[in-house]
Amino acid sequence: MKRKVCVVVTARPSYSRVKTALMAIKNHPELELQLVVAASALLDRYGSTINYIEEDGFTITERVYMVIEGATLTTSAKTTGIGIMELSTTFDNLKPDVVCTIGDRYETMATAIAASYMNIPLVHIQGGEVTGNIDEKVRHAITKLADLHLVSNEDAKQRLIKLGEYEDKIFVTGCPSIDLAKEVSEKPELDFDPCEKYGGVGQYINTNEPYLVVMQHPVTTEFNEVRKQAETLIKVISELNIPTFWFWPNPDAGSDGTSNALRTYREENPNNMFRFFKNMEGKDFLKLLFHSKCLIGNSSVGIRECSFLGVPVVNIGTRQNRRVRGNNVKDVDFDEVRLLEVINLQLKSNNLKQEEIYGNGDAGFKIAEVISKAKLEIKKVISY
Amino acid sequence: MKRKVCVVVTARPSYSRVKTALMAIKNHPELELQLVVAASALLDRYGSTINYIEEDGFTITERVYMVIEGATLTTSAKTTGIGIMELSTTFDNLKPDVVCTIGDRYETMATAIAASYMNIPLVHIQGGEVTGNIDEKVRHAITKLADLHLVSNEDAKQRLIKLGEYEDKIFVTGCPSIDLAKEVSEKPELDFDPCEKYGGVGQYINTNEPYLVVMQHPVTTEFNEVRKQAETLIKVISELNIPTFWFWPNPDAGSDGTSNALRTYREENPNNMFRFFKNMEGKDFLKLLFHSKCLIGNSSVGIRECSFLGVPVVNIGTRQNRRVRGNNVKDVDFDEVRLLEVINLQLKSNNLKQEEIYGNGDAGFKIAEVISKAKLEIKKVISY
Amino acid sequence: MKRKVCVVVTARPSYSRVKTALMAIKNHPELELQLVVAASALLDRYGSTINYIEEDGFTITERVYMVIEGATLTTSAKTTGIGIMELSTTFDNLKPDVVCTIGDRYETMATAIAASYMNIPLVHIQGGEVTGNIDEKVRHAITKLADLHLVSNEDAKQRLIKLGEYEDKIFVTGCPSIDLAKEVSEKPELDFDPCEKYGGVGQYINTNEPYLVVMQHPVTTEFNEVRKQAETLIKVISELNIPTFWFWPNPDAGSDGTSNALRTYREENPNNMFRFFKNMEGKDFLKLLFHSKCLIGNSSVGIRECSFLGVPVVNIGTRQNRRVRGNNVKDVDFDEVRLLEVINLQLKSNNLKQEEIYGNGDAGFKIAEVISKAKLEIKKVISY
Amino acid sequence: MKRKVCVVVTARPSYSRVKTALMAIKNHPELELQLVVAASALLDRYGSTINYIEEDGFTITERVYMVIEGATLTTSAKTTGIGIMELSTTFDNLKPDVVCTIGDRYETMATAIAASYMNIPLVHIQGGEVTGNIDEKVRHAITKLADLHLVSNEDAKQRLIKLGEYEDKIFVTGCPSIDLAKEVSEKPELDFDPCEKYGGVGQYINTNEPYLVVMQHPVTTEFNEVRKQAETLIKVISELNIPTFWFWPNPDAGSDGTSNALRTYREENPNNMFRFFKNMEGKDFLKLLFHSKCLIGNSSVGIRECSFLGVPVVNIGTRQNRRVRGNNVKDVDFDEVRLLEVINLQLKSNNLKQEEIYGNGDAGFKIAEVISKAKLEIKKVISY
Repeated sequence: MKRKVCVVVTARPSYSRVKTALMAIKNHPELELQLVVAASALLDRYGSTINYIEEDGFTITERVYMVIEGATLTTSAKTTGIGIMELSTTFDNLKPDVVCTIGDRYETMATAIAASYMNIPLVHIQGGEVTGNIDEKVRHAITKLADLHLVSNEDAKQRLIKLGEYEDKIFVTGCPSIDLAKEVSEKPELDFDPCEKYGGVGQYINTNEPYLVVMQHPVTTEFNEVRKQAETLIKVISELNIPTFWFWPNPDAGSDGTSNALRTYREENPNNMFRFFKNMEGKDFLKLLFHSKCLIGNSSVGIRECSFLGVPVVNIGTRQNRRVRGNNVKDVDFDEVRLLEVINLQLKSNNLKQEEIYGNGDAGFKIAEVISKAKLEIKKVISY
Repeated sequence: MKRKVCVVVTARPSYSRVKTALMAIKNHPELELQLVVAASALLDRYGSTINYIEEDGFTITERVYMVIEGATLTTSAKTTGIGIMELSTTFDNLKPDVVCTIGDRYETMATAIAASYMNIPLVHIQGGEVTGNIDEKVRHAITKLADLHLVSNEDAKQRLIKLGEYEDKIFVTGCPSIDLAKEVSEKPELDFDPCEKYGGVGQYINTNEPYLVVMQHPVTTEFNEVRKQAETLIKVISELNIPTFWFWPNPDAGSDGTSNALRTYREENPNNMFRFFKNMEGKDFLKLLFHSKCLIGNSSVGIRECSFLGVPVVNIGTRQNRRVRGNNVKDVDFDEVRLLEVINLQLKSNNLKQEEIYGNGDAGFKIAEVISKAKLEIKKVISY
Repeated sequence: MKRKVCVVVTARPSYSRVKTALMAIKNHPELELQLVVAASALLDRYGSTINYIEEDGFTITERVYMVIEGATLTTSAKTTGIGIMELSTTFDNLKPDVVCTIGDRYETMATAIAASYMNIPLVHIQGGEVTGNIDEKVRHAITKLADLHLVSNEDAKQRLIKLGEYEDKIFVTGCPSIDLAKEVSEKPELDFDPCEKYGGVGQYINTNEPYLVVMQHPVTTEFNEVRKQAETLIKVISELNIPTFWFWPNPDAGSDGTSNALRTYREENPNNMFRFFKNMEGKDFLKLLFHSKCLIGNSSVGIRECSFLGVPVVNIGTRQNRRVRGNNVKDVDFDEVRLLEVINLQLKSNNLKQEEIYGNGDAGFKIAEVISKAKLEIKKVISY
Repeated sequence: MKRKVCVVVTARPSYSRVKTALMAIKNHPELELQLVVAASALLDRYGSTINYIEEDGFTITERVYMVIEGATLTTSAKTTGIGIMELSTTFDNLKPDVVCTIGDRYETMATAIAASYMNIPLVHIQGGEVTGNIDEKVRHAITKLADLHLVSNEDAKQRLIKLGEYEDKIFVTGCPSIDLAKEVSEKPELDFDPCEKYGGVGQYINTNEPYLVVMQHPVTTEFNEVRKQAETLIKVISELNIPTFWFWPNPDAGSDGTSNALRTYREENPNNMFRFFKNMEGKDFLKLLFHSKCLIGNSSVGIRECSFLGVPVVNIGTRQNRRVRGNNVKDVDFDEVRLLEVINLQLKSNNLKQEEIYGNGDAGFKIAEVISKAKLEIKKVISY
């Protein structure tokens, strides 16, 4: 009898981060993949991640609509509540032997609670890291609900041990996002025209010329400053006068502030040098980053994949605060002058060394192996 | 401007455990109490805790119905989901400066998630302890969501520090349940007739004769064994042939198993020596315990209040597994022979010393003080 | 390809009323039965209807927990809301060709809305009748959402036509509850001992002696009077001094008032002549009625099955207000004196004629036939 | 004591349709307005109706987020379920004496169920009309739940009487949307530049030149054809080569199909003659219509306000099927050739007579009067 492994994917970045693990689970002779696509991963407005998933050859076992529209802190809470109600039905129907949740987005708590309350062993992928804001609370809370931990590096493992988890329940697999980065670093040609393939809106960008990539997500504990932060960033980038691929933020509380700032700018500056995208297939996105002069923003892609790819990153604000990072990253606050300064510094860096801080490229394989072999238990008591 | 302190009470034992703190908050010149009564604390079937709350002179700010009937693991998850949806509306309306949640029952996670996701500082009362089963997961997960920790003893404090919480956010206040125990120990007369005052069903018990008290809750990770465990316990107690006050379990998953076993026994043994109660006012319950020969079951009252009161306790099974305990407690498994043996042993013990393991009787006062003075912040990063 | 017929059963009386139809659908060569058991039909407290369903040989396709505990008007509304959320997932998974809902209980609206909003043809069984209170609103509202109407008699059909429904969408099948009544009337021996077979609590009743049956449900628009009405009824029945089978009410708003009145009476009158039951298998219940001196209360069983069986009925209050009724029924208000008078009158009646007001005994068969043949459409416009 | 009147506004068109009634209730000496803004009326994506409401001087009593994002039939059902859960809490807190719901959108059922299940008298504005699809089912179902009916014309009143409602519970007030139309017809100058005032995207339109207005909503029972219908319409309008104000559809199931067709067209035809708007303040919109050559689509504005304003309308498809209409309306199907033909015909019509089919301009005043005087009752039984 194969182990039934239910993975719940709730957002675009979670999918890219877990894709090679999904593939390895699907192909593992002792595992059966139950793929649940939920929350913003289903929504057109956030880039229809589900389409990429299907194009990658996965069968969707169940779709779970759970996002209450509104993008306020209250709707984030309510979305999580609905997620628990809906996912508990899903688990009742699918009867998985083990449930996997990824990372630290607010709605992943719904997966963690539904599974642990229903006595289904819970695997947490990417626990043990440190960042800032609500993600930080969510990540460690899920650690305390999880029965098995698959982490990116030794640093994360040691943190989980300090958190009272047992060493035999923690496995350093690396982060599956690095698996993709490895494939891309082995064959990095930009073999497509982003504007043509992905549409987007705004100026056409010729990728033979130098270009930037921007990806900035709102920080939910700084809810009221989101719009001002977005405006500062837009101002600085537009002064650089370099063609820029700009990615819309995730549907977190506060994303409407960012979106509105971007829309206003576009309407007032019809001749800007930006092109806006919702989403890109994972490898295409990494190729785009590989050839870019610099990634600017607060996406964890800058910390993880870009350290492996050797892409310069300007990391803004508190969102990635204390994550382990490589030499490719320079941190800066929302200060106009400093921001410009640091970006210009990074634009001059080159020949960055590739670093294996978040894995060496076989995380997906290792994850499937661990899940197929690990003893599955739900009783757990803190180690001290 | 007074600080608005919203306390969410979801069950009978949580109320007794927090009553003196509620009183102290209510009377504190710099605090305004917003008392939300939710979940099983509202329900007749579980002893209408809300009536006791009102009799104690509190004004209920809001009632939140959230229990999905069914008492399965799935309905526990769904109840939590609904709790998040409902409590987020409540917090939106009440706009508290700080939210307090108590202990580790599954539905308290709803309070913790709604508050933390809405950027309202979260106080956790009674974190840092160790027990077993789902409570253990819930308790530590809430710790990771909470911004301020009010704990029972130094042991709990040290555990929270190990869990990565900052020392200046942890306050040893003692457990408010001990405040009541102290009052009772100073004036322990059994000044009421339990059967007359609280009704209940079954045999009349004369409290001048020796009697037992039983309080056994189902353990949710042992869902399928609940009925069998209940039957074992019933068998052993009935063999003792001592009048017994028996309290119905909380509405957790599995409680129907216990309830059914009890009902079947009653119908088949009309002349049993048990009397069944849903609930008792907190002090009355402690007085009843004070004069009992022994408390049998897995209630945390045995570990906490009874150590202060010096009442012998037979603690059965895994539920209180690793909680710090006094000399009054003897642990035993669901083994018929051993159970009978250990109970008989405890029935002979006397002159137990009072121990102050969970506080010395002014916890309510200290809790109100801390909440009135503490710096309220919602950003938090693990300490290592 | 068989038509997939999803029937949602939410309560004890709905099941008895539809049982022969379920059997006929299950056995029909062109139909596939999807049986969803939901709401109070799942709950132990309301007689575990689901056990009877399984004993009758049905396979439960899905269980849907949706009752928010509390029994207030607000929880009735919330239960319906949750029902819509849950049943829409159920229909998404089961992909029925047609959904059936029965009668007029408040939570059946959840079935009707989920199906009609999802463009699934909706069959309403037992529309077109007239009664009082919220049932009346619900019943006619469901008529306006339904695409096909299977009614008990010509009177109901004519009412639906007046309501703007098209004649070719209305089928007089009779009420399936009469199918059971017919079977019982053909073989009416009371071949079991009710107290022995069903337990219950209270006095043992010898069915060879004359006995009464009481079944009184709270009327939700008279919420505040429920307890007083229950007390009046208890007083009158106890004065009659005849052994009485008393059935607990449905879990409507207000049922706690009735339940509490009954519990108080029991405790204050330990030597009463009542025996209390939650539920009985449908035919057993009809046999019990057949041999009773009189049915007292406001159950629709008195109007429907009892007219076919020729059992005297005292129908109290507004609940069945304008339902078509036979000569076996005498109506009365909650007036102590009149109530006693009318009951005594009925106790003297005998040799009542059987009447076929709600069908002649083959409704289940006809219902399956109509569902297998009818054109299924979801577009509908009022006929005038 | 003033009567507390709770009006729940869930969408852009409902607000315009009820605005003068809200104003009259607010200003009525015997009434207190409780204004609940819910569902898509809160959402930026659908034109932030709430901003217009606040600009009009109303105080929002409560905001209720309830839209589950996804725009499928299933999410429509779930949105309604959540609406019931949320609005029942709202009504519990506000304790209105009467609740008003408007029209026939799917989510208005949530208002109707929450109020009627909680025994709060329910007023339905705009019942008794006839159209097509799910609106038709919803409208008449709400009629059966409502206690008081305020209708647009005698035709609607007669239909309600046929539906079994009592004549003394039905009041012909006219439709409040006509109140605005009357004000506009008395002072119709187009005193603003739509592109400047409302932004929108696309071509700038000079309102001194002839222009069209398009407003086409998806029909939920024709879910799968929505995209094709949108493409047909786009093709025909673009062939006309007349500047066109195009309004985005409501967030019904299917609206994503329309939106996607519009986006694709825009990207492939950068030089099209369309300008796209989400929303306009009610009177501005009517002024825009007043001066347009023709309104094309399936909005009820064409049937109602435009008959009073004397604006030519091409009404497409089934959505307004059987609504009473004036001479200004020509109906047509989704046939390319016929569509073009009928539009061209309407473009030649002029000097249309104003008709008072849906009221004569004082509906708001009459509605407030009726609500202040009417006897409020919740018991109702069908009249036949």
